[in-house]
Parts: sequence; C-alpha cells; structure tokens
Amino acid sequence: MPGNSFGKIFRITTFGESHGKAIGVVIDGCPPMLPIDESMIQEMMDRRRPGSGRASSPRKEEDLVTIYSGVFKGMTTGTPIMIMIENRDADSSAYKKNSALFRPGHGDITYQARYGIRDFRGGGRASARETAARVAAGAVANQFLAQQDIKVTAYTTALGGIQAKKIDPDSMSANPYLLADPDIVSEVDARVMDAVKAGDSLGGIVEIIAKGVPAGLGEPVFDKLDADLAGALMSIGAVKGVEIGSGFESAAMKGSVHNDPILPFGFGSNNAGGILAGISNGDEIKARVAVKPIPSISIQQSTIDENGKPAVISTTGRHDICAIPRINVVCEAMVCLVLTDHLLRFRAM
Amino acid sequence: MPGNSFGKIFRITTFGESHGKAIGVVIDGCPPMLPIDESMIQEMMDRRRPGSGRASSPRKEEDLVTIYSGVFKGMTTGTPIMIMIENRDADSSAYKKNSALFRPGHGDITYQARYGIRDFRGGGRASARETAARVAAGAVANQFLAQQDIKVTAYTTALGGIQAKKIDPDSMSANPYLLADPDIVSEVDARVMDAVKAGDSLGGIVEIIAKGVPAGLGEPVFDKLDADLAGALMSIGAVKGVEIGSGFESAAMKGSVHNDPILPFGFGSNNAGGILAGISNGDEIKARVAVKPIPSISIQQSTIDENGKPAVISTTGRHDICAIPRINVVCEAMVCLVLTDHLLRFRAM
Amino acid sequence: MPGNSFGKIFRITTFGESHGKAIGVVIDGCPPMLPIDESMIQEMMDRRRPGSGRASSPRKEEDLVTIYSGVFKGMTTGTPIMIMIENRDADSSAYKKNSALFRPGHGDITYQARYGIRDFRGGGRASARETAARVAAGAVANQFLAQQDIKVTAYTTALGGIQAKKIDPDSMSANPYLLADPDIVSEVDARVMDAVKAGDSLGGIVEIIAKGVPAGLGEPVFDKLDADLAGALMSIGAVKGVEIGSGFESAAMKGSVHNDPILPFGFGSNNAGGILAGISNGDEIKARVAVKPIPSISIQQSTIDENGKPAVISTTGRHDICAIPRINVVCEAMVCLVLTDHLLRFRAM
Amino acid sequence: MPGNSFGKIFRITTFGESHGKAIGVVIDGCPPMLPIDESMIQEMMDRRRPGSGRASSPRKEEDLVTIYSGVFKGMTTGTPIMIMIENRDADSSAYKKNSALFRPGHGDITYQARYGIRDFRGGGRASARETAARVAAGAVANQFLAQQDIKVTAYTTALGGIQAKKIDPDSMSANPYLLADPDIVSEVDARVMDAVKAGDSLGGIVEIIAKGVPAGLGEPVFDKLDADLAGALMSIGAVKGVEIGSGFESAAMKGSVHNDPILPFGFGSNNAGGILAGISNGDEIKARVAVKPIPSISIQQSTIDENGKPAVISTTGRHDICAIPRINVVCEAMVCLVLTDHLLRFRAM
Repeated sequence: MPGNSFGKIFRITTFGESHGKAIGVVIDGCPPMLPIDESMIQEMMDRRRPGSGRASSPRKEEDLVTIYSGVFKGMTTGTPIMIMIENRDADSSAYKKNSALFRPGHGDITYQARYGIRDFRGGGRASARETAARVAAGAVANQFLAQQDIKVTAYTTALGGIQAKKIDPDSMSANPYLLADPDIVSEVDARVMDAVKAGDSLGGIVEIIAKGVPAGLGEPVFDKLDADLAGALMSIGAVKGVEIGSGFESAAMKGSVHNDPILPFGFGSNNAGGILAGISNGDEIKARVAVKPIPSISIQQSTIDENGKPAVISTTGRHDICAIPRINVVCEAMVCLVLTDHLLRFRAM
Repeated sequence: MPGNSFGKIFRITTFGESHGKAIGVVIDGCPPMLPIDESMIQEMMDRRRPGSGRASSPRKEEDLVTIYSGVFKGMTTGTPIMIMIENRDADSSAYKKNSALFRPGHGDITYQARYGIRDFRGGGRASARETAARVAAGAVANQFLAQQDIKVTAYTTALGGIQAKKIDPDSMSANPYLLADPDIVSEVDARVMDAVKAGDSLGGIVEIIAKGVPAGLGEPVFDKLDADLAGALMSIGAVKGVEIGSGFESAAMKGSVHNDPILPFGFGSNNAGGILAGISNGDEIKARVAVKPIPSISIQQSTIDENGKPAVISTTGRHDICAIPRINVVCEAMVCLVLTDHLLRFRAM
Repeated sequence: MPGNSFGKIFRITTFGESHGKAIGVVIDGCPPMLPIDESMIQEMMDRRRPGSGRASSPRKEEDLVTIYSGVFKGMTTGTPIMIMIENRDADSSAYKKNSALFRPGHGDITYQARYGIRDFRGGGRASARETAARVAAGAVANQFLAQQDIKVTAYTTALGGIQAKKIDPDSMSANPYLLADPDIVSEVDARVMDAVKAGDSLGGIVEIIAKGVPAGLGEPVFDKLDADLAGALMSIGAVKGVEIGSGFESAAMKGSVHNDPILPFGFGSNNAGGILAGISNGDEIKARVAVKPIPSISIQQSTIDENGKPAVISTTGRHDICAIPRINVVCEAMVCLVLTDHLLRFRAM
Repeated sequence: MPGNSFGKIFRITTFGESHGKAIGVVIDGCPPMLPIDESMIQEMMDRRRPGSGRASSPRKEEDLVTIYSGVFKGMTTGTPIMIMIENRDADSSAYKKNSALFRPGHGDITYQARYGIRDFRGGGRASARETAARVAAGAVANQFLAQQDIKVTAYTTALGGIQAKKIDPDSMSANPYLLADPDIVSEVDARVMDAVKAGDSLGGIVEIIAKGVPAGLGEPVFDKLDADLAGALMSIGAVKGVEIGSGFESAAMKGSVHNDPILPFGFGSNNAGGILAGISNGDEIKARVAVKPIPSISIQQSTIDENGKPAVISTTGRHDICAIPRINVVCEAMVCLVLTDHLLRFRAM
C-alpha cells in the first residue's frame, strides 16, 4: 500500500534507495509561476550533505539536484515537478559482509517482516539518504513560504545529553552542531570526540520555529496543524518524540499558568506553540523533536542472522556519529511542507 | 478542505458539535462479518462518559450509541457503519454569556480566524465532546483487534506534576485517575482537591501500550507506524507531546545503550517502543502523550472580545479539572484505529 | 476498503441501506458561511422522490431531510455537515420471499462474492435508494454553484428506444418523463404503458448541461474534468455509458469537423462539450448517460439460489418501470458535486 | 492541487512534458517479489511507440525505459518503483512558430486559463506523449495480472467512420490498425490515405476486454469497478465516451432482454459487461471508448492568439492521423491499472 507520499494539496512522492541509481521526488500540486531553479534547491541540499562537520559521515555525495519536469523558463507551470539526485559515491562493499545479519536499531529486521525481501545495501529505502528527497521538496516549499514572508529555522538545543541553557538561534551558524547556545559548544565537542573514540553514537534535541505564519492554518479534527506536524516530524527516521509549545512540560502546569493570555495585539506567552485547537493563532510555531543516537556503531552488539541464529555485529560503514546537525534541515523541510500544504488548503476553503 | 477523516483503509469520518443535535461517525472500510452491536460499543463509550470520577465534568450525558447502517443480523456487511450519539444534556446558557469573548487556551480565536464563523456553544466542533465519535469508532476497531489477540491499554503515569515511580497497569482500575502507580494516588487526590478549590485545572501524562501486535505493520517513508501514531495522538485536543519507546530520553542515550539487542526470540530491551524504521518489530508498542491542563478555569484571565477590545473572562460551564482519566480511552481508541488500519494495509500488500 | 466517499475538497461520504434505519451523507470541506437549510435541500430531494410519475415506484417515502451538524444559525460553519433521511416506508416482506435467490441484473450475486454477506432487504446498499444521499449532498453543492451563477440541468433525450428529434429543455417540465422533445411524449407514454402491462421495464438517455462554468476547471492528467464527470456519472447504479460533447459521434468525425473553431468571444461549435484537455473552456459543459432498463421485472427469469441451484424468479416489489425521470436529478447532483469540487480545487492553486 | 496520481493501493504518479527532459512514473504500492525488468516493460512500450504504422507520427522516439528504484535483483521490493523515459528526439522548432496561437481542439487555451502559464512545446504536459508513463506503469500492472491469469486486450472496432461488422480479436495483429474485422481493412486503408492527402485526421472506437477477472472486484458506491474504469479511460486525452457491456444500446433495451440470465455455471449473456452493481461478476469485462480525431491538422483553422486577436493556424508538427492504433495499448494499460488496484483492494478487506 502506498506510504511514500506526503501532503494533500502540495503533495510529494519520494522514491529511491541508498545504494540504488538515484533518490528523488515528484511534487504534485505546486502553484504555477513560482520562480525556481536547481541552484536554489541546491543551497538547501548542501546543508544536509554528508561530509561536513565533525559528527558527520565521510561519504562524499555531491547531491547534485536536477529538475526533470514542471519548470519552464525558470517558473513552475502547475504540472508535476520531478527532482532527482543520482547516487554517485555509493560503496556497498561494507554492507555485503553483513548482508545476512539484522543490524540492531535498524529497519533490516522489520523490512524483512514487512516485505519478505529487502535491499540490504546501505539500508536501502530505510537509509537516512532518503531524506535528501524530502529536502529537495522542502526547498521548493521554502521558496513558496519565502514569498509569504514565512521563515522556518531549526537549531540544536541538546546533544549527547548536554542541554542548552539558553536559546540564541543567531549563534548556531558559528558552531558545527547548530547549537543555539554557544556556551555549551566545547563541552559538546568533547562528548562527540569521546563517542568517536569509543565507536559509539549520540542523540540530541532539535527545536524548529516558524515565524510569520498567519492565523487560521490547520483543520478539525484529524488534520490539525499540530497533528500534521507531529506526523511529519515523527516520520523522520531518527525521531522518537515530538513536542509542540511547552510540550511535556505542559503536563505539570496548571491551567492558569499554561493558558496564554489573549491581548489586543497578540498573546502574553506562547505555551501553545502557536497552535490552538489545531489551528495556528498567528504566534510563532514552535516544535521540538527527540533524535535518537545513530544505530550504526562499531561497538559489538548481539543480533541474529536471517535464519534466526545468534551473531555479533560491528557496523563499520561510513556513518555519522549523530544525526544532528544534518537532520536539522530535514526537520525544516518537513515543517515547510506542512505549512505550504496548509496555506494552500486554507485557499481551498 | 476535508480534515475530519482518519485512516486509509479502516477510514472514519466524524461529525457533530458539542451543543448541536448529535455527534457521530461513519466507518468506511470495516471488514465484513465482524460481530458487532451497540452494547459492545457502549462499554467502551462508558469509560469516556462525563460525570464519573472526581476530576470530571458534572455534565450527565448518557452517550447512548445507535448504529444506523452497515450491520445486518449482528454482523458488519462491509458497507459504511454509521454510529450516532444524540446530545441530550446540552446546556448552552453558560456559553451565551461569553459568546463574544475568546476563551484563552481554547479554539475560539483560531476557529474565527479559520472560518470567519463559529458555533460558540460549548466549543462547537472544538469541544472534547468530539472525541465521543472517536471512541465509538475505536470500539469497532478494538473488536477487530480482539479477534487477532491484540490488546491496547492506556494508563496514567503523571497527574498534576506528580510522577509515577513505578508502572503497574493492573493497579489502575483501583483508582479514579487510572494511575499505574497506587502509591501516588493520595498525593494526586490532594493536588486535584487544591485545583478544584482554586478554580484551576491540571495536566498529566498517559502511556499507551499495545500487546500482541505482529511484526511488519507500518510503511516507508511517511506512513510509518510511529508517524501515524504521533499524528493520531497529537490530533486529540489536549495533547501537546508524543513519545515512542524511550522518547525524549533517547536524546541523551548512546547508541550502544539505546539499540535494543536482537535475540533469537525477541529483543533484549525495548527502547524502540516496538517500532524500527517505522515498522512494528513484534515487541510491545509503547507511546506516551503529554496532556495539557484543561483551559476552562474559573480563575479570571485576560482576553479580548470579537472586536479586539480587552476583557476578562472566567469560565463557569461544566468542565473537567483534568482531561485525565477520560482522555485515556480516547488515546486507546486512536491507537486501535491506527493498528487496525495498518493490519488491513498489510493485507493489501 | 473505503469506496463510499466522493470528491477531494468538497468531499462526501454516504451511508445507509434501503431497508435499514436511514440513508445519509457527511459533507466534509464545504466552505463556511453558505446559507443553507432543510427546505432548500428538500426541494431537490422531492424531484427524486418515488411515487411521482407514471414510470415510478408506488413506495411512498416522504424523504424528509434533517441536518444534524455543520450548520449554525442557517449558515455552514466549515465543519462536517451531516444530513440524514430516515427510512419510514420500508416494507421488506416482498424481499424475504426471494432472499435466497440472486436477482438477474442486480448486485445480489456480486455483493455475495465481494463480502460473503449481504443485506438482501430491498437490495441493501445496492438499492437506488442510496442515491437519496447523493441528491442531499448535491443540493448543498447546487446552492454553492448558484452563488457563482452556475446552473446544472438534466433532461431526457430518449426513453424506451424512442429518441428525441429536437432538444428543447424548457419543455421538459410539461411531461412526466422530463423529455426535452414534447413531440415524442405520447409515443413514450404508449411505450411505458406497454411495459407496465408486460411486467417489463425500459431504459433511456439523459443529457446534462452546465451553464456558467468558468474556464480553467479540471486538472492534468488523471483528474481531468471529463474523467471525473465520467466516473461520477458511471457510479450511478443504472448508468452503462457516458459521453462528453459529441461523444461516440466524434469517432466518425474528421478533425476539421470536430475541432471547435476558437473565436474572439467563444467557440464556433461545441463538439468538445466544454472541455479541452480535461479542463473547462468556458463553453457549456455537456454530457450524456445511457440508462439501462430497471432489472426488477415481474416477467419470470432464470437464476440460481445461494447454493448454486437453478431457479426462476419474478420480482414483485414496488419498483419503477424506468429509472428516468427520477435518475435525472441524481445526474444533476453528481455533476454539481464534481463542479463544486473543481471550483474549490481551482482556489487551492 | 494534485491530479497526476491514479489508484488507491497500486498508486501511480506520472510526470514530464512532451519536450522536457523526460517522461516518467512512480509506482507506490506494488506488491513485493514481483519479477520485473526493463525488457518486460519495453515490450509493452514498443506497442505505443510513434513511427510504426501508416496512421502514426514520424517522430522516432526509442522510448527506452530505465528503472531507477524499487527493484532489487530483478524483483520488486515493495518500495516505490520509478521508471523514466528520456525525451531524445524532441524537436520544438515547429511549435515555436505557433507558440502564441491556441490550437483548436487542443489544451493550449485551457492550460492558459488554468495556470496562467504553459509549456507550449509539443503541448507540454497535455501531449499524448504523457501516455508513455501510463504504459510503463501499466506494464508492471500487467505483469501482476499475468500471475493471476488475467489478460487484457484492446482492439479497434471502428476507424474513420467505418464500423467492424464482426469481432475477431485474433485478426488484429495482421493489420496496422489493430482492427478486429479483417474485412474492413482495405476500406479503412483508403480512408486513412484520403485523410493524409487532405491534411485531415480521423477518430475511431476501441474495445477492451479483460478475461479471467474473478468475481468480487469493485466497491460501493463511488468506487465501483465500472466507475473507476470510466474515469480511467476518459482520462486518456482523445477519449470522448465510455461504454460498459451493451452501453448506449442498453438504453433502448427492455429489462427482459438486458438482464443477463444467471445459470449454474455463468451467465446466459453479457449485457452487463461483466459488472453488476459496480462489482465484477466473473464474466468477461467489456468496455468501449470513442476516440476523437487528432486535433492537429494541416488544414487551416480559425483561432485567436494570446491577446485574443483572430488568427488562422495550420499545424505542421509530426503528428499521427489517428490516435488509433497507438492509443490501444494505453487503454489496455489503464484497464490493467484499475484491475490491479481493485485486486489489491479486495485483499485489504
């Protein structure tokens, strides 16, 4: 059954495996006459590319995007936009060795249960490489949002168990982890080096904010804006939790504290994260995701082979230590896709 | 644009407002020859009904369900099942007084922004009463799951800021909050009484587990089982956060700790919450939701009226102090709907 | 799998069986602030009601519609509109006699093959009574279209094998068959009387036109306006063929004759039926449907019972002789639903 | 709004313009472990290729298909299958001349109305070249159907106004028009030569049959098998009418003649075209489509330019004289897609 499409009006369908010929996306429902070209998409793609940053994989994909349809003379035409990224630096040799073993924390065992067959090379469709297609589509959505003065930003608020004490989004570009707190960078650095040495991996927390979102986006009762954001963000491979606004802290608050006072020109606080009853209220949209540690580690782990026999495995492919910071732009992309879809849904009223 | 449907194969569409004629649901895609009757649905409905438990609203709806179609001689026929609950005890008088004021923490202001019109009586479509339709549909899904020996249970792990120290699901029925930890019941009791006296409200955390789910449910890459669960649970009015497995704690774990070892007959731990790469792995499915405090409180709050003029509001309708424990069965219902949909999707392969 | 919904933005889901408690529809995606009430819907319902006209069934349903949700103070609110018609005059006695026999030309045998169970009373879900829900929804769509000065009309161009020689839509209300040619009414009358006497039934052709449709509705490549109209009209029980514009006559035309010349203020002809490349061109939309004879006849026919044993059957329930003229308003309803959906889709661009 | 996808479980999304980089399709929902390779798809593609047959365009695309994803070691994996055909022989020069003129009978004027922008080269997305993607997807569906012993065949029953007097499908491969009646081939030949000389074009009728379809496919009430077939076939560019079984002839039949008698091992006739109440009855599925004449003719026609000024146009690109026989395999492809989708939907019950 189809599960590779996202969105109702701005609808994307992605395809491709980590070590197949290519990764790509078809965008159906993009409004016509949006200026767009490959360089604009490339810019966002480059923020997801492996090989940049200490916590990142040594795989060196250039991730060059090509637009195959839907754009004429630099403008979208309203017809489907197909964007593809060829896989050029795929090296499957490391995977063949362990092809009969299920890697712990990975989808090997569940894909086998689901389909009875799996492309074991680099995780196949379950690889984080799949997110390249999300970012390509997100870049188009981002271009649409920019026209409406909406800006989506994702920064890191925790990594390897070290929490940011303050949130200063402007500081994130000065460190390789996109941390919003410059004061914890050196501590995080040390934690990452320890993990590298130990052959282990780390997780963290990413916060995403969207500024400029008008009130009125989202719909009762299942397609609420927060429900769609939660589904979108949880669909990213490494994400294990999603919060909106004050999130899990809300559970311990009293109503008199949690309720955001309504003032003549805005709200007195933003525990709601910009969403009330599933509809944007005009305040900043705020979400946070929990990113689990990368499951591929060189430390030996217990597993079984395809015949159910016990085995040990040590994963030695080219992997990141932490999905952060590469996952940040993926989070931005998913939020861009949700917002664009809901902006267009609003028009359909 | 439609937003009141959920599921792809076991697909429900709900309708109705809090103080309108009725609340109901159409289930399209239910397999034929499932034994079903009103009493079976009623049993699950009764767990959501207002008026039971100290933290609950004094509104006394009987919530009697009637099946209008899709069932013949006690069996589903494969055609749409319409289930309706008439609103009998709706008292709109308290709402008329404040009909021109936007209640903080409620959808009044956002529905106005979305539609330019709103049924202000009892929150209209944004009322928690809407969840009655979810539970009616969830009861049918639950019946389907029971035939496959799958059991979904939701219990409380925190209320009013007091956290359970242990999880003993069997103990929940012995207390009015469905707390899984009997040792904190009296402390919670005191916290609830304080809130009642203060005219304030409380939030909490609900954990949902599903036992007996086979491996192989869920699909790449957007319709992952955890993505669908996150969207489903976040679509419940009061929910502000969703976690799967070790959730936000994952962010601070190392890969060597978080990865669940694969053993010949199962897994060595369950940080994954029973889901790997978006597909069930045969282990127990585990999710948690953060429930915000009920926004309707009698404490005075700042707001504005429909003309933007500042005002104060004190909400005096018949409300719960905490969405827990009534929300627990709603969480169960949503998880039942997701699992049933994915079981049927698996068959469609 | 769900199959009882229609439309992408103006989306309806129907439910109910011929001899169950009720027939109804949920409309999700109706724009807010559309003035609407039961009397407005009733007017269109009355044109579908049995018991009017010589070719019609003696069953006397009043078909009283009740709106259960989505309307507040006479205006739609943007939330789901549920409309229900209770079955009051259902008499299942005639059906019980033949409950184990598959009626030729009916869905008895195919519902059994599809579901392994069927509600045999009056055809259950496969009854033409199902179309009452379509007309109720179509009436709401019609109200939306009226606001845009779009008018949909269906008239009869053939009945019992007698073809209209001219098309004068204004003349249709003067005869019980809604024939657009007053000159053939008496001949049709005689043909109908013969069929009544013989216990046989008749078919015919209905033409539907939509005036005032703006250019630009419809989408490449599968959701073309003509594709959606064809699917919509063919989904009506008795319909066996659908044509757009010059339809099957196109097959024998040359390009130089079929192509409609484009003039500064319109087109020189309308072989296209108002649709080019699946998108409306601003000209009158024109479609025709072939309506098969009613399968329920009192003449004896060969069939089998549920065990596969040969039998003869004579259907004696209360049936129409011809689906025309009651089907005409159903055709109008389906065209209204398609046009409304595409008008809203256009906005979503 | 998206309109380039088809099917609910076996779901395809096509992309590409006539003179863009490529034409292609993503298939999402194909069952795993279906043996598949490019040569198998190529075989069906070759039947659609231009440049074969007297009524065909001189454009010489090789239409070489490449599978980019979803296939591993010659088997489908359950993940999206992307198939692309590069445009190699696109010559846009002839189109630039007339780029500001709306061609009669074409989508130029309606695309402009829909999107405000259009790729005028070769008709862009509205070109018949778009159907290459349908055939590539249909070839995969055909492979799935072959495993279930289902065979879909399309042959010509009329061309240029000359009707087949008998239907002998086996004879079609012996003539370039795929005519099912060998006795009219020379007459058709002469008619085609006349059209070539006159710079005119022709239409015709194609009949599609599906053998081996089990009873039980199709669903009430909008997703009936015949409704889906009608929508699928009408979505093909040149089609102006669709009939099922006895189609428009049904309108003149009596019930006693039209009803197919039910016998212990089948039906006494097949006026139903293998479908009762929207569900297959186990008999041969039969449909017919009316194909309009190709709108591109060299005879001068009246039109307007983009500013609304009157003009004359003579289309001189490389075009077919008749969409038949190339459209026949497109009809087969669409029927294969519908049947595969409904076979999988049946499983989802």
